[in-house]
Amino acid sequence: MKRITILINCKDSKGIIASVTNFIHQQSGNITYIDQHVDRVDDMFFMRLECEFSAKVFSLKVFKNIFSEVIGKKFEMNWQLHDSDSKPKMAIFVSKYEHCLYDILSRYSSNELEVEIPLIISNHPNLEHIAKSFNIPYFCIKVTKDTKQQAEDEQLRLLKEHSIDFIVLARYMQIISPKLIEVYKDKIINIHHSFLPAFPGAKPYHSAYERGVKIIGATSHYVTEDLDEGPIIEQDITRVSHTHTIKDFILKGRDLEKIVLSRALKLHTKRKVMVSNNKTVVFT
Amino acid sequence: MKRITILINCKDSKGIIASVTNFIHQQSGNITYIDQHVDRVDDMFFMRLECEFSAKVFSLKVFKNIFSEVIGKKFEMNWQLHDSDSKPKMAIFVSKYEHCLYDILSRYSSNELEVEIPLIISNHPNLEHIAKSFNIPYFCIKVTKDTKQQAEDEQLRLLKEHSIDFIVLARYMQIISPKLIEVYKDKIINIHHSFLPAFPGAKPYHSAYERGVKIIGATSHYVTEDLDEGPIIEQDITRVSHTHTIKDFILKGRDLEKIVLSRALKLHTKRKVMVSNNKTVVFT
Amino acid sequence: MKRITILINCKDSKGIIASVTNFIHQQSGNITYIDQHVDRVDDMFFMRLECEFSAKVFSLKVFKNIFSEVIGKKFEMNWQLHDSDSKPKMAIFVSKYEHCLYDILSRYSSNELEVEIPLIISNHPNLEHIAKSFNIPYFCIKVTKDTKQQAEDEQLRLLKEHSIDFIVLARYMQIISPKLIEVYKDKIINIHHSFLPAFPGAKPYHSAYERGVKIIGATSHYVTEDLDEGPIIEQDITRVSHTHTIKDFILKGRDLEKIVLSRALKLHTKRKVMVSNNKTVVFT
Amino acid sequence: MKRITILINCKDSKGIIASVTNFIHQQSGNITYIDQHVDRVDDMFFMRLECEFSAKVFSLKVFKNIFSEVIGKKFEMNWQLHDSDSKPKMAIFVSKYEHCLYDILSRYSSNELEVEIPLIISNHPNLEHIAKSFNIPYFCIKVTKDTKQQAEDEQLRLLKEHSIDFIVLARYMQIISPKLIEVYKDKIINIHHSFLPAFPGAKPYHSAYERGVKIIGATSHYVTEDLDEGPIIEQDITRVSHTHTIKDFILKGRDLEKIVLSRALKLHTKRKVMVSNNKTVVFT
Repeated sequence: MKRITILINCKDSKGIIASVTNFIHQQSGNITYIDQHVDRVDDMFFMRLECEFSAKVFSLKVFKNIFSEVIGKKFEMNWQLHDSDSKPKMAIFVSKYEHCLYDILSRYSSNELEVEIPLIISNHPNLEHIAKSFNIPYFCIKVTKDTKQQAEDEQLRLLKEHSIDFIVLARYMQIISPKLIEVYKDKIINIHHSFLPAFPGAKPYHSAYERGVKIIGATSHYVTEDLDEGPIIEQDITRVSHTHTIKDFILKGRDLEKIVLSRALKLHTKRKVMVSNNKTVVFT
Repeated sequence: MKRITILINCKDSKGIIASVTNFIHQQSGNITYIDQHVDRVDDMFFMRLECEFSAKVFSLKVFKNIFSEVIGKKFEMNWQLHDSDSKPKMAIFVSKYEHCLYDILSRYSSNELEVEIPLIISNHPNLEHIAKSFNIPYFCIKVTKDTKQQAEDEQLRLLKEHSIDFIVLARYMQIISPKLIEVYKDKIINIHHSFLPAFPGAKPYHSAYERGVKIIGATSHYVTEDLDEGPIIEQDITRVSHTHTIKDFILKGRDLEKIVLSRALKLHTKRKVMVSNNKTVVFT
Repeated sequence: MKRITILINCKDSKGIIASVTNFIHQQSGNITYIDQHVDRVDDMFFMRLECEFSAKVFSLKVFKNIFSEVIGKKFEMNWQLHDSDSKPKMAIFVSKYEHCLYDILSRYSSNELEVEIPLIISNHPNLEHIAKSFNIPYFCIKVTKDTKQQAEDEQLRLLKEHSIDFIVLARYMQIISPKLIEVYKDKIINIHHSFLPAFPGAKPYHSAYERGVKIIGATSHYVTEDLDEGPIIEQDITRVSHTHTIKDFILKGRDLEKIVLSRALKLHTKRKVMVSNNKTVVFT
Repeated sequence: MKRITILINCKDSKGIIASVTNFIHQQSGNITYIDQHVDRVDDMFFMRLECEFSAKVFSLKVFKNIFSEVIGKKFEMNWQLHDSDSKPKMAIFVSKYEHCLYDILSRYSSNELEVEIPLIISNHPNLEHIAKSFNIPYFCIKVTKDTKQQAEDEQLRLLKEHSIDFIVLARYMQIISPKLIEVYKDKIINIHHSFLPAFPGAKPYHSAYERGVKIIGATSHYVTEDLDEGPIIEQDITRVSHTHTIKDFILKGRDLEKIVLSRALKLHTKRKVMVSNNKTVVFT
């Protein structure tokens, strides 16, 4: 069987669900998963389906065309069709902290995270030994004020060369260029070590400590041009008290960062996230 | 518009989703909500839909018949159809603890819990003043070894007289009779003051204290013939430590009981829960 | 036995603990609880003790004098001595939302919250019936731009007349005057319906909804001159998703507000909170 | 400075705190941390202190003798004195699952877990490469019904030879012998992949799945002769729903196991845990 995942987003109107399910049925598809959501404030409709077709006669390319003509245009949809069995190609950007990198590679290793990882890009050479131990190509692209433009061009070149589908910033400490954000809109996932919108920017653990909060968090989000303001995919928290030093905040925070980032990567990989109005709809 | 909620459960097979959506479309209905789940271990299919029809021409009775003939029998479904705008009639059973009763009545009062409460039944007279202050009929039916049978008959009689749809045991301390469980299968919601299956039965806070757990919980479930073993609807926990006495466990536990029970009642009221194989599917 | 609670705060130095415990021993006191904390960033020492003395010979007034002379001045301490068995007098300020008020009064009623409540002050008449049903004096003091000064004077007068020890703002929607904050420094507890420092000010649930957070929270803190920026006593969170509307945020948030506020009130009542550098040390 | 940690446990009585603090003061020690707890049900007193002494004149051996004579015997105490700056020697027992092993070794590597790890013992050869990459001696000791006794003798011999202070069972799947439990009473830490006392024994995720719980957990505890019934050190939970398969339970559970076990190891390493009546007192 050929299995595909369909994501749909458009203005809400009557008959969308029936039209889509009917269309798939007429194309001899069997729907194995369907979920939808209507945002009644924005009047936006979201739907996610998984379907299977007989492999002998199915062509994803042909199906996409017919879908576009019959359904997509009719409801003026934003839509995506994915081969459910193909693993997306994910690039990792990392700086000097290794905890998120190790966590991702370990889950990739055990096939818990179902992606291909064609390359790792870093602005430092420090973590190359980790990439080597997992047999993944490592590219050290230093970034300074003067070389910022060339660095970005090199990054884009490598990403295209390796047919990268999406990017994870695993505690990558450089600002991402607008060009890259544009090419990979809603496809760059960052982990910020605070519970956004609290403590954006640098040294959030220090700020959290000074504010005397009783809870710290981590947030995974898609990167937009506004730092730490992109659509939130997943967040989680842990409790702290006066007995914890900033070092304790950092250590507890690292465990949070790993788990929140890995949850976001899994959701994106399984095509369970849709973005609209700077927010996400996350299907279960 | 006439709005209805449909719950479907049957053996999984090809074409269920398309058949159902197509059927509704042909009946001139508009689907506003659809979600489904397949349990691949048991091979069971679950679906929940909300649809709207033109009020002028729609008859729930007629629709039920056609649905049964065309869809229900075809897939050998267990199915339910509800008028989305009708409030279910809920009876409250209570003994001497008032915290859950107050919490329920307070949410009912503000219309957060969208039910009708035709009566409150208790085996003690203590809480009658609360029922009075909310203008709800209160029936004190004492239960002793000798009078158990009559008490149950009287309960059933009152429930039928008031057309009760479901029952909440708000810390009701008597065992429910098999007869009542049978009549109200998957329609009696209990709150047990532990995180099941840990500490079933009496005095769970005392047992939790003795075991030295670091977490206590509360569980809301449908009542079956086996005490505390029915399908779980909702659970939640709170952390405890050596600094907490049994009295502290009880106080913290009460806050949990109120919130876990109210979540379960809301889910049941909105027809978001389905039962199969002693477990629940809870739609969001 | 006469039981007292001692709270100490000063610059850290050698020998504080031994000096204090020795002093109490020499005064024929028995220490039943001791806990301390050193903030190594600020170099600040905090300690909380509970002691008992023979009631026949003990005078709290005399003990305070000796303590001040022998210990307090030696280490330049900020210190508090309380009669452990005396219930503090708490005033409630409320506007039109009743959920926190009901929750507080219900816990006070069952003696879970061990305070006296001499009065309730409100800027609206709406909730007077609740105060009446608990037999508590209710004072409606309207506040407008023109009458702000008189309103505050009247509030202060009533608070002094009733010997109020601390104040809880149970969703009181007026800004507290600097004068009141000064008189009741670290003795006015507010509940803010967000996870501070995220979403301070008005309509935090609306802001949280627009930001698309996956977690909302509530924060209890001491009121300072800077709105929502005072020392945090307690916080907690609950998860939300795209399936929740602003109305759902508000309903879930109310349950959080009640529990977070009640925890903070219990901690303050039991003299378990100390304030330093705009943060709290919360003893367990 | 020489820093020591003192743990005390005895029947509660008047004057313990003053006696101990006075004694330390007289020995020219400075108390930098003190916390205590009284279990009023069992009438048991617990205290933890950290003190510093001038290194030139301090002898831990001598101090232990004096402490025993002056304080220990007076109150019939169970007591422990530790050199705060010495790292305990921890042995790891592992079978074939690597996730807890990797997590421990990674935290050890970054010095987050402040222990020495002289050896790893396993009943399988599979994970030897991991031990090698961290330069830790690996001993494969197979265990069958016939060789059980010799295997245990060999384990004990190796543990003694390496002066092991405590043992972590990082998903070690063999039952620990009574002899080993006796030698290392309250010094063998296990991670059980359920929220005890729910689902003890084998395949807890399968049992949790069948029960239809909405929450799964992990528990770290000291090993006693009764399987999964020893004193609980730490527990934590994560939410599950009908959308999760057993495989999902296992994956989510693994993240929990790692974090719960690491928290327990850190608490034990820092000498923050005391055991009494099959429960733990965990100081913060």
